[in-house]
Amino acid sequence: MNDTLQSLRSRLDEIDSQLLALLSERFRVTHEVGMQKRNLNMPAQDIARERLQFNRIEKRADELGLDADLMYRMWRLIIDEVIKNHESLRQEHKV
Amino acid sequence: MNDTLQSLRSRLDEIDSQLLALLSERFRVTHEVGMQKRNLNMPAQDIARERLQFNRIEKRADELGLDADLMYRMWRLIIDEVIKNHESLRQEHKV
Repeated sequence: MNDTLQSLRSRLDEIDSQLLALLSERFRVTHEVGMQKRNLNMPAQDIARERLQFNRIEKRADELGLDADLMYRMWRLIIDEVIKNHESLRQEHKV
Repeated sequence: MNDTLQSLRSRLDEIDSQLLALLSERFRVTHEVGMQKRNLNMPAQDIARERLQFNRIEKRADELGLDADLMYRMWRLIIDEVIKNHESLRQEHKV
């Protein structure tokens, strides 16, 4: 392995740390969303909002030269986890 | 929908834009990695490096209160795409 490869790999590790920090913030914000939805008695999943989010992500992915299908699969994982968390919050409320 | 929910959703859209920008930079860097690997005749996949990456991600996920299994699934998608791209670069080199 040469110095260039080593330096590129360090950069990737930095980017991964930044991605994880942003994802952590994202789940903190969606926890707040879940609390609001629970208080307003709104359902855990909002198909119309999801459609807007995915349209936006696809558009930005195209602009940035990212594979839109890969981005869809990544955000599907995130959003499915968020829905699961929102459902748990609603269940806690019912107890 | 109330103002708080609207404001939380705007914050999520901002975070998603930041995530997409970072992912775009990540794929630019891995393209450089692929070029280096091609020039050094290194294989597209590096199991030892992957193991280090996943250990690091799992550790950071725990520190940040993120679901480590979800992070594994997200990075598995990213890294599988990177390996595919590296293999394409090697194939181009052979032509």
